[in-house]
Amino acid sequence: MPHFNRIVIHGVGLLGASIGLAVRQRGLARSVVGLGRNEQRLERAREMGCVDAWTLQPGEAVPEADLVILCTPVRHIIQTFHDLAPLVSPGAIITDVGSAKASIVAASRRCLPQDGARFIGSHPIAGGEKTGADNAYAALFQNACCVLTPTDINDAEDIKRLRHFWEALGMRITICSPEDHDRLLAAVSHMPHLAAAAITAAARAADLDGAVPKICGAGLRDTTRIAEGSPDIWLDICTENRPAILESLDTLIQHVQKIREALSANDEFALREILSQAAEYRAKL
Amino acid sequence: MPHFNRIVIHGVGLLGASIGLAVRQRGLARSVVGLGRNEQRLERAREMGCVDAWTLQPGEAVPEADLVILCTPVRHIIQTFHDLAPLVSPGAIITDVGSAKASIVAASRRCLPQDGARFIGSHPIAGGEKTGADNAYAALFQNACCVLTPTDINDAEDIKRLRHFWEALGMRITICSPEDHDRLLAAVSHMPHLAAAAITAAARAADLDGAVPKICGAGLRDTTRIAEGSPDIWLDICTENRPAILESLDTLIQHVQKIREALSANDEFALREILSQAAEYRAKL
Repeated sequence: MPHFNRIVIHGVGLLGASIGLAVRQRGLARSVVGLGRNEQRLERAREMGCVDAWTLQPGEAVPEADLVILCTPVRHIIQTFHDLAPLVSPGAIITDVGSAKASIVAASRRCLPQDGARFIGSHPIAGGEKTGADNAYAALFQNACCVLTPTDINDAEDIKRLRHFWEALGMRITICSPEDHDRLLAAVSHMPHLAAAAITAAARAADLDGAVPKICGAGLRDTTRIAEGSPDIWLDICTENRPAILESLDTLIQHVQKIREALSANDEFALREILSQAAEYRAKL
Repeated sequence: MPHFNRIVIHGVGLLGASIGLAVRQRGLARSVVGLGRNEQRLERAREMGCVDAWTLQPGEAVPEADLVILCTPVRHIIQTFHDLAPLVSPGAIITDVGSAKASIVAASRRCLPQDGARFIGSHPIAGGEKTGADNAYAALFQNACCVLTPTDINDAEDIKRLRHFWEALGMRITICSPEDHDRLLAAVSHMPHLAAAAITAAARAADLDGAVPKICGAGLRDTTRIAEGSPDIWLDICTENRPAILESLDTLIQHVQKIREALSANDEFALREILSQAAEYRAKL
């Protein structure tokens, strides 16, 4: 039985298009409509089977929808609330896929009807190096984690329906506040990315006539792998989750300094403790 | 044709035993003698085909050797010079496999005959999670990098012979000063390890009811993988290469702070520059 009658997907990049594909393959909605600004990309998404139809006009798609999923970059999601506010049906659930949640949820409460009570933030933690509808695939969400960030004003029934929707795509659900989400994501994704960039920069600073690439082993390679990701995408992510990332970078600096102090003081006990705790916690990841 | 008549390997752990195995399989010496303190481990190395014979008495093996390879932990290598000094033949080349070079080369110059002119530091960058002669294998060195750290007092012919020896084990040679070696290894291996421990500690500090392992993706997992390594082995390595690691940690802290400042000031230009440079350099590794 379909979970929803009409799902509107705003933005048919890798995530939006893959959601559409998975929804259509699993029959989770009677129809999936793509909404966007680029005709060619929307038509490509239709050809790929990601949407049943598409439109450039929010007014043509949004009023009929009972689920609207915002899949544009984070900075556009907040703008989008203003455009959608007069259009969404009072019965529709609205969600998004953005990787920062506090700013988005706050904006939804300011801009959407009913104080944004029908908006629940989602963050399906899935993606890949390749972007766009051409690379969409329904299994993208299988066994991946989706964080939902409802707040007090959300209806329990809406939370349950949205949870079941993501679960139907194969996802494991974690629920927390928008602020905790941002702190967790900073610690799990954004800070490690910036740390990898800093480690790379420090290795580069120590390089002599290209010796680093020659003697570099799996250790440096693994530690810095994510630093090869697209600077533009990461710049967007970092900007949106700025406060939580700054906090996480401070925690990182504190821990590097603690290690530096233990090493400098030749405090083998403290250093073993730090390394042992890290090894133990790492084994859980 | 054998490169050496008798090779003595001091310490038959993973590295020492694997060298013996490779030497014997490739016929690089007429005989390989294991030297150590533990009869069972030495006998096991012989059973595994890593040495032709073994002894607990340096006086029984060292005087006949034309190549002595010190494969004990770094802190033991420096002590060993005193024991070996009266025993080594004036014609023998002495080398080691330690992962810190400045302290070892300095000690060799103080302790060995002829101001240690027959000692050339080697660092075959090879190893694995598993230790001991039981896990020895001859291909451990294939295509791996070996750093040689000769100084002005070494003889060109000795350097050439040692270089050919490691090349015969399948290694690619990089030559630099002991001090440059330590700086490079700190940047390529020791600092990234401690950084991985710090990232792990920062992620742990942000964890809420075990949410981090649930939402953690490949990014954090790759970045922290090496932090799961043995705390004892890393404690040894860090202690021996302390000055260079402290310098490298300072460089790391500077780069994290630079990123933090750019993010805090919302300086997208600076942040994109940092991320782009890191992505570009990472692609070379």
